[in-house]
Amino acid sequence: MRIVIVGGVAAGMSAAMQVKRRRADAEIVVLERGDFVAYGACGIPYNLEDPARDIEDLVVRTPQEFRAHGIDVRLRHEVLSIDPARKLVRVRHAAGIWDLEYDRLIVATGASPLVPPIRGVDRPGVHVLRDLSDAAKIKQRIAGGEVARAVIVGGGYIGMEMAEALRQRGIAVTVVERLGRVVFGFEPAISDIVRDELLRLDVRVETDASVDSIDEQLSVHTSAGTVAADLVLVSVGVRPNVALARDAGIALGPTGAIAVDEGMRTSLPDVFAAGDCAEAHHLVADSPAYIPLGTTANKQGKVAGANAAGAHEVFAGIVGTAAFRVFEVEVGRTGLGRADIERAGRDDLVSISTHASRGHAFPGSAPLTTVLFVERDTGRLVGAQMAGRGVVGTRIDVFATALHANMTVDDIERLDLAYAPPIAPVYDPILIAASVARKDLERARRG
Amino acid sequence: MRIVIVGGVAAGMSAAMQVKRRRADAEIVVLERGDFVAYGACGIPYNLEDPARDIEDLVVRTPQEFRAHGIDVRLRHEVLSIDPARKLVRVRHAAGIWDLEYDRLIVATGASPLVPPIRGVDRPGVHVLRDLSDAAKIKQRIAGGEVARAVIVGGGYIGMEMAEALRQRGIAVTVVERLGRVVFGFEPAISDIVRDELLRLDVRVETDASVDSIDEQLSVHTSAGTVAADLVLVSVGVRPNVALARDAGIALGPTGAIAVDEGMRTSLPDVFAAGDCAEAHHLVADSPAYIPLGTTANKQGKVAGANAAGAHEVFAGIVGTAAFRVFEVEVGRTGLGRADIERAGRDDLVSISTHASRGHAFPGSAPLTTVLFVERDTGRLVGAQMAGRGVVGTRIDVFATALHANMTVDDIERLDLAYAPPIAPVYDPILIAASVARKDLERARRG
Repeated sequence: MRIVIVGGVAAGMSAAMQVKRRRADAEIVVLERGDFVAYGACGIPYNLEDPARDIEDLVVRTPQEFRAHGIDVRLRHEVLSIDPARKLVRVRHAAGIWDLEYDRLIVATGASPLVPPIRGVDRPGVHVLRDLSDAAKIKQRIAGGEVARAVIVGGGYIGMEMAEALRQRGIAVTVVERLGRVVFGFEPAISDIVRDELLRLDVRVETDASVDSIDEQLSVHTSAGTVAADLVLVSVGVRPNVALARDAGIALGPTGAIAVDEGMRTSLPDVFAAGDCAEAHHLVADSPAYIPLGTTANKQGKVAGANAAGAHEVFAGIVGTAAFRVFEVEVGRTGLGRADIERAGRDDLVSISTHASRGHAFPGSAPLTTVLFVERDTGRLVGAQMAGRGVVGTRIDVFATALHANMTVDDIERLDLAYAPPIAPVYDPILIAASVARKDLERARRG
Repeated sequence: MRIVIVGGVAAGMSAAMQVKRRRADAEIVVLERGDFVAYGACGIPYNLEDPARDIEDLVVRTPQEFRAHGIDVRLRHEVLSIDPARKLVRVRHAAGIWDLEYDRLIVATGASPLVPPIRGVDRPGVHVLRDLSDAAKIKQRIAGGEVARAVIVGGGYIGMEMAEALRQRGIAVTVVERLGRVVFGFEPAISDIVRDELLRLDVRVETDASVDSIDEQLSVHTSAGTVAADLVLVSVGVRPNVALARDAGIALGPTGAIAVDEGMRTSLPDVFAAGDCAEAHHLVADSPAYIPLGTTANKQGKVAGANAAGAHEVFAGIVGTAAFRVFEVEVGRTGLGRADIERAGRDDLVSISTHASRGHAFPGSAPLTTVLFVERDTGRLVGAQMAGRGVVGTRIDVFATALHANMTVDDIERLDLAYAPPIAPVYDPILIAASVARKDLERARRG
């Protein structure tokens, strides 16, 4: 029994370990086109921030460690095509091209950064964050003292994390965002908090600014003017790497990523997919979603590996939880956002509240802003967003748990949550948000 | 319509504000025997910690502010008795004793610290934390430079918070605990983390040490030896102030606190009770519980006030959530603990796990230890405890939400929780704890 895994980052290596645990006798071959496997890509900004850290400390397990577990990890091996009829993959390596047979195949090809068609985007000095090697190059340039000014094209959450990282290294940073505000997937009230935090740390923010070109001196010409730079980072989103799967006849879903069932099976027999190349079932929307994140990739990889080894495990789905930090501000969301709601033709109530993060008069207490999306007829929570200088990520987890349990805002208002001055005020911002939403709902129903 | 409220701290003042909101015409009289109303007693240790803060900054609203809202707040007014037949309370004040009629009465008499029968416990220099005045006295003594050494009798969570506060003021602190470990309401694995944090900050910890006497020099003589002190704080728990209610014929519950229904009604018509003098329905145990906490007091006060004003509000109950911090360690619990489980004759599985608080290689990541109590037949979570140097309080809130939703450990393992290196690892300690508990359960079922 040979199980071949294409891609060796989060999903691929989780799958490999799971196969090994379940079927010690299986031959497991991981084909990774890059130079590293099993690294925490999400940790890249925080690694760049600290000159003392080696980029390779993001590697959770080395190929040698996997090999010691009996997993055959091959770096710089690119899979060119899949032949599902003959059950083999065509592999290219420096040594040549050959075919490798599989009994079960797991596609974990990940995602790639979008590169917009900007003139000059391919110049040296313009970077994207595709993998650890890209991060290593940026870190090397900073260490070499070459970077006094950086432009980040794209105001998404990775752009925010990178703005912090570069600023912490003493670099003058400008964020250029095509849309009207940063982190556009969040409500304006949340975007404003993020923008204010960027401005507080002297990050320049140019919104409504599309990039026309990047010239030889690396000056970035936008619809709002020109910004000089020594380093340009393009971070405008990712797309799933599906060419290999699509060309093999594996069905893609409505989002453009690989369609999978709850056992991570694709449309082809004995072929599984997991991670940033695949869809996940969104439990609140009750439809397939494409929200590539490391945590989902790990969980999907585990289920794909288990089932490739003959088990019947299930990845139940996601509720769209995501969080990031920028300087001292934490930001999180879960469930449906405005775009999801509009796409689905829903008419949910949007309720905004702000409340202290800690007890009365406790030092370091700061306002947290919460946006809730609530189904009007039932009062059921369908989405939550939060931002502020305090614990937001794990508060979003409470809302995520409430989504899993189909709770209404009344249910949430009745939760018995922790109170201690250093941890939370008497009424946690979660309870305040639910209470405000309930009252907003009552008001909307009355008139 | 006159509504009389006995006690003006958390529950009493929440009730008063709620009555005012619902019935602007009602006459509201709050009778408080102490010198302050509406203060955050839970904030006392953090106030003492900071010499620059005035003790009165713990007051959330002054009597003047309440009076501006039309609430008649009377300090240093003690209620001596209730005559439910004639619907009046007998009140004592410096000016004399008189009767005051009520249409509705809310008993919010709070709790008092237990004072164990130790010889010398009534000496000057031996303190209990009954109210803000007691805290003011302690703060004054510290400010006067009188306190180089303190002994805290009692290793509960208030003892822990006070150990931190006094230590931060440069005072040598010894905690004396009669039982075998500090914070005995938690599992040993949690107590150990708290003890280690105390030791790290040079707090002496004497367990299995009962106090025999406190002598004239304030030396504390225990079964384990003698500790010299300039200040002794006795903090061995609280009991509900129920004498007034009991003498009036109001029924007490099995815990010894005032029995209330979900509308905060007592056994007497037109008499409500709320806060630290009253029971609350424990949703997991499905029985009355006495867990006096500021957050429950506020919520119960609101419901008592609303219903005294003629509404039909409900306080659904608690799941036993509580949290505290000692130095850098956060500690929390929710649901049933070992004592509850043994008392109920239950046979729940106890599962312990430890996992990182933050992403791989992220600075400041620290182990968090989680204990879960799980119903063996169903896999349903019935209790959770957690401790470590990271975000614990709001993680306990996730478990509390899971308890409200009757989730099993399988359900919890499938939660889509936030992941970002500064916030949580790929698998949050919550997910790891659920996964370990599921496996422990499977192992226990097999044999």
